[in-house]
Amino acid sequence: MINFCQFGAGRIGQIHAANIAANRRASLRYVVDVHEAAAKRLADEYGGTTADVGAALADPEVDAVLIASSTDTHADLMERSAKAGKAIYCEKPIDLDMQRVKTCLEVVDAAGVPLMLGFNRRFDPSFLALKAGVRAGRVGSVEMVQIVSRDPGPPPIEYIKVSGGLFRDMMIHDFDIARWLLDEEPVEVYANACCLVDSKIGDAGDVDTAAVTLRTASGKLCQISNSRRAVYGYDQRIEVFGSAGMLQAENLRPTSVVHSGAEGIHSDPPYNFFLERYPQAYKAELDHFIDCLETKTAPSPTGNDGAAALALAEAAVRSYAERRAVEVEV
Amino acid sequence: MINFCQFGAGRIGQIHAANIAANRRASLRYVVDVHEAAAKRLADEYGGTTADVGAALADPEVDAVLIASSTDTHADLMERSAKAGKAIYCEKPIDLDMQRVKTCLEVVDAAGVPLMLGFNRRFDPSFLALKAGVRAGRVGSVEMVQIVSRDPGPPPIEYIKVSGGLFRDMMIHDFDIARWLLDEEPVEVYANACCLVDSKIGDAGDVDTAAVTLRTASGKLCQISNSRRAVYGYDQRIEVFGSAGMLQAENLRPTSVVHSGAEGIHSDPPYNFFLERYPQAYKAELDHFIDCLETKTAPSPTGNDGAAALALAEAAVRSYAERRAVEVEV
Amino acid sequence: MINFCQFGAGRIGQIHAANIAANRRASLRYVVDVHEAAAKRLADEYGGTTADVGAALADPEVDAVLIASSTDTHADLMERSAKAGKAIYCEKPIDLDMQRVKTCLEVVDAAGVPLMLGFNRRFDPSFLALKAGVRAGRVGSVEMVQIVSRDPGPPPIEYIKVSGGLFRDMMIHDFDIARWLLDEEPVEVYANACCLVDSKIGDAGDVDTAAVTLRTASGKLCQISNSRRAVYGYDQRIEVFGSAGMLQAENLRPTSVVHSGAEGIHSDPPYNFFLERYPQAYKAELDHFIDCLETKTAPSPTGNDGAAALALAEAAVRSYAERRAVEVEV
Amino acid sequence: MINFCQFGAGRIGQIHAANIAANRRASLRYVVDVHEAAAKRLADEYGGTTADVGAALADPEVDAVLIASSTDTHADLMERSAKAGKAIYCEKPIDLDMQRVKTCLEVVDAAGVPLMLGFNRRFDPSFLALKAGVRAGRVGSVEMVQIVSRDPGPPPIEYIKVSGGLFRDMMIHDFDIARWLLDEEPVEVYANACCLVDSKIGDAGDVDTAAVTLRTASGKLCQISNSRRAVYGYDQRIEVFGSAGMLQAENLRPTSVVHSGAEGIHSDPPYNFFLERYPQAYKAELDHFIDCLETKTAPSPTGNDGAAALALAEAAVRSYAERRAVEVEV
Repeated sequence: MINFCQFGAGRIGQIHAANIAANRRASLRYVVDVHEAAAKRLADEYGGTTADVGAALADPEVDAVLIASSTDTHADLMERSAKAGKAIYCEKPIDLDMQRVKTCLEVVDAAGVPLMLGFNRRFDPSFLALKAGVRAGRVGSVEMVQIVSRDPGPPPIEYIKVSGGLFRDMMIHDFDIARWLLDEEPVEVYANACCLVDSKIGDAGDVDTAAVTLRTASGKLCQISNSRRAVYGYDQRIEVFGSAGMLQAENLRPTSVVHSGAEGIHSDPPYNFFLERYPQAYKAELDHFIDCLETKTAPSPTGNDGAAALALAEAAVRSYAERRAVEVEV
Repeated sequence: MINFCQFGAGRIGQIHAANIAANRRASLRYVVDVHEAAAKRLADEYGGTTADVGAALADPEVDAVLIASSTDTHADLMERSAKAGKAIYCEKPIDLDMQRVKTCLEVVDAAGVPLMLGFNRRFDPSFLALKAGVRAGRVGSVEMVQIVSRDPGPPPIEYIKVSGGLFRDMMIHDFDIARWLLDEEPVEVYANACCLVDSKIGDAGDVDTAAVTLRTASGKLCQISNSRRAVYGYDQRIEVFGSAGMLQAENLRPTSVVHSGAEGIHSDPPYNFFLERYPQAYKAELDHFIDCLETKTAPSPTGNDGAAALALAEAAVRSYAERRAVEVEV
Repeated sequence: MINFCQFGAGRIGQIHAANIAANRRASLRYVVDVHEAAAKRLADEYGGTTADVGAALADPEVDAVLIASSTDTHADLMERSAKAGKAIYCEKPIDLDMQRVKTCLEVVDAAGVPLMLGFNRRFDPSFLALKAGVRAGRVGSVEMVQIVSRDPGPPPIEYIKVSGGLFRDMMIHDFDIARWLLDEEPVEVYANACCLVDSKIGDAGDVDTAAVTLRTASGKLCQISNSRRAVYGYDQRIEVFGSAGMLQAENLRPTSVVHSGAEGIHSDPPYNFFLERYPQAYKAELDHFIDCLETKTAPSPTGNDGAAALALAEAAVRSYAERRAVEVEV
Repeated sequence: MINFCQFGAGRIGQIHAANIAANRRASLRYVVDVHEAAAKRLADEYGGTTADVGAALADPEVDAVLIASSTDTHADLMERSAKAGKAIYCEKPIDLDMQRVKTCLEVVDAAGVPLMLGFNRRFDPSFLALKAGVRAGRVGSVEMVQIVSRDPGPPPIEYIKVSGGLFRDMMIHDFDIARWLLDEEPVEVYANACCLVDSKIGDAGDVDTAAVTLRTASGKLCQISNSRRAVYGYDQRIEVFGSAGMLQAENLRPTSVVHSGAEGIHSDPPYNFFLERYPQAYKAELDHFIDCLETKTAPSPTGNDGAAALALAEAAVRSYAERRAVEVEV
């Protein structure tokens, strides 16, 4: 039984708390949030009590922390938790600043505690099957990866302003998936982007539509496209092409119902957003984390995976600014 | 909080016990099974203790029973539970003999306890969406229903022998779905069938492949086909055709992954069997039962739904014996 | 080069004349129709001249006749053409009366001329691939065939009145397909039907919605369903299920375009009707007929195929009248 | 009736000659090819006689030329045909050198003869429907276009060497489609590419795998990916995403047959290559050309479309060499 202290009681925190409560190998001991009321609601529903950071980390019964608070708190909480000897599950990103990420990872490393980064998509059953197919050689040698990733609608402008921008906040998931599927580090990044969805996003200095190309040392290519708004819902497609064929993970939809009428053939749109699209992935990544703690093996994705995805985002930011392909700085 | 006593600790009992345990509004108090060890395993995992029927039903804390034991015990357990004032959730069928079903339902009726029949498919999200579409008029007036229902492989011959035969054991689900979607009682049944899958099934006096036609008073038609063996897995498709179009519920598969190779385009087979195909349905029917108990409304499907589906099965048996369409005897 | 005399300048005649004209191995010499103007239009467009039956058949340059006139003229034209020594391609059916079919086939047989029946669906590329897959053992031993066949809308009542009824006029195509795919003669037929689309069809003594079950001697089953009206277009689906799997031929649509919008995923309806759905089949059956004439091999489907499909239709009519399964009378 | 002189009797010439012969409004007068035997074969099959360029262009009966000879002859033949007053249909590209293209177009322009460029994909029924949907506003404002274009296998190295390279030879089709669907000129191009399929292609100074990003002045983005080898056949997919949704044109396959077996669900691969995939497009573009000649309207795609697509290819070549986004030089 792994006892958890969870930091953060917002939307994603809700998911994690419910998964901890439903997991027969886990127990929720503390919920910590600056919004005390939110923390209390979560604790009342899923177990445990509220506490402040210090008290929670001081409790020797706590085995692990799950960091689902706002991005700017991640690195500090990771360091404090590491020093307290707790295993760490942290939502992406570690931090928006690469230097801060590095110092944080050094602290965690020095403490020798397990760390897992919450790149949930790696645990989606379809993407897992895609990866297994690639590993089994069903596409032969990977040559080209295509990732389409579109949200149903943009987040509030207030969030955009502190998000670190589309490349660090949204495309970082795709950078992680690209690294995972290419199975070779991208060394060159080209990014183009614009603001087509909402001019307020542009006013805030961000983009909402982006197209990125990655290239590995051996010449494998990857194209990623993002939009902050797809009227038909959450668009999450991956395609891996290689010397022996292609594997595609298509969108999923809530039912298999198809209607045929005078206007044509019609089916439901895909799942609306990540809460509906990735519930199994959130459960599976928690299971993996617990597995690793129980068997004392290293969880994955690692802190370095978090840093590497951020490095690609940083490169994309530079590339877009300089209108040229840039090398990834590790 | 509804306290359950569950009868039966077999395969389907396992599902129900897990769902009771995971349901925040339910609690498992007793697991009763002639196989004491199986009952104990379930109780240990999902809560409660083992008991004999009398002791469990005598406990005033028990609000409801969930009957998932072997078919020949259903009617007796329903009657005893009804007399003990417990709400009843019973797996299909009530009994293989219509007369026994009727006397049992009279007893339950006299006791005035809620009764719900476990026709799980009515709670599958895709079939629910299909039904909602029909109700919303998306196919206009229903004219023809097509149901294809095939198991991945036949059950053991020992089970076949006590099953009541394909029409009562397997197609009864499709009879229920047909009644539900036609929204008008079938009055005429024609059945043809044969033994093509395994001659041992024929030796046991049963069939393994069947084609049935239903007709309602107003002339709506329904075609059902069953096979005890589909090498590609659990085949569960429904199509409702009417004056304004068609709604189809297609098979579901575990992932959305598609492979394109030199031999063509390939995707996973459908879910293998009911445990994988209908987990959401089992959860949803338990939720519905609890909703009804909490709000003191009548659950559905009812005991009469169980009797009506059995009446169609009986008619199919007669039709097949007599090589003619027969009227349904209510 | 095969010189054709075509009887009939209506809708289906238009297709055949165009295909003869476009076929490099065929030439259209005569178009014969009681509507002289229609015959002239066709001849002007696709070659040849108009003539009466006697003159056309007397021309020794004519190698073959293509009979696409109204059903009641088929048998007479076949007999006259046979006696004139012409190879015969005849649209289905030979006649609506089985006795007349038999005497006609005897005449043709006695004359020793090649005869091909126009069951065009056998030449559709998808159905050909389905058949090839069955033959190659991809479904193992065939156990169950499902055929759904729906027209976009009913023909004029005047046509209905002389059509011979749904079973002889419309379902005859499905009977032929069933025989072709079962690869064993159905020996038992059960038909249920009703009038749900247009009460005028019922007033004319016909049905517009039908469900039929066929059974072969070895116990293979086939379910056919027909409707005279599907608002989404021409619905032509076939499914062959067997011990080693299933082959399905789905509907085809004009383009591969898919739209994703706020209301869901949308694609074009299937082709509207047979002219759009089966152009390749009409071309391919003409090619097959010419191949057979050139190589002096027997074309298929044969006259006996026409008689056998009609026998199934006759059995369906009797079954529906008597509410029981009937044996096919050969 | 438009009388054609066709230059080129190779693979693509074969298609055009057959289409001219089958077109009721066209007639093939001359086939001109340096391979006299090939020209004769085509003329024997589809009409007309062989001739040399001068004689054919001198014939006042010739209304139009169809240029399907090798790329290096296109510009000269266009100029000579223009000076002879013939309407010109020319296979892409006009020339591999932009300066030569410009002088050629000036000559044609001065002669005032109609000119149509053979970007056949614009006439594919699915792509036409996609374009019509975009024009009808079904995706709202276009924001992102994705084009995947892969050949089944690379051409001979000898062809590669004179092809002008992947960007000018293969991706030029995608550049044209991108311009057509974006409905706004791309102003910025980024190209990355490599040689992964066959090292001989790299030895010849070319690439076989490429990823390109286009950007228009208003910020619309387009991602194109090419490979010279897809083991599953000809991969031709287009996706247009915008403010109100998405339109996709998927691959087409020869039949609608689907097999379900123990290993999963299987369907045919897409059409193997352009001859099988685009027969309707080749017919339709010839029809459009003839329509324009008959109605004296300007055909499209124009010579400028040819030049603009080449300009994108040139920009891609420069971008790839310079590892940066470059502006398109018009």
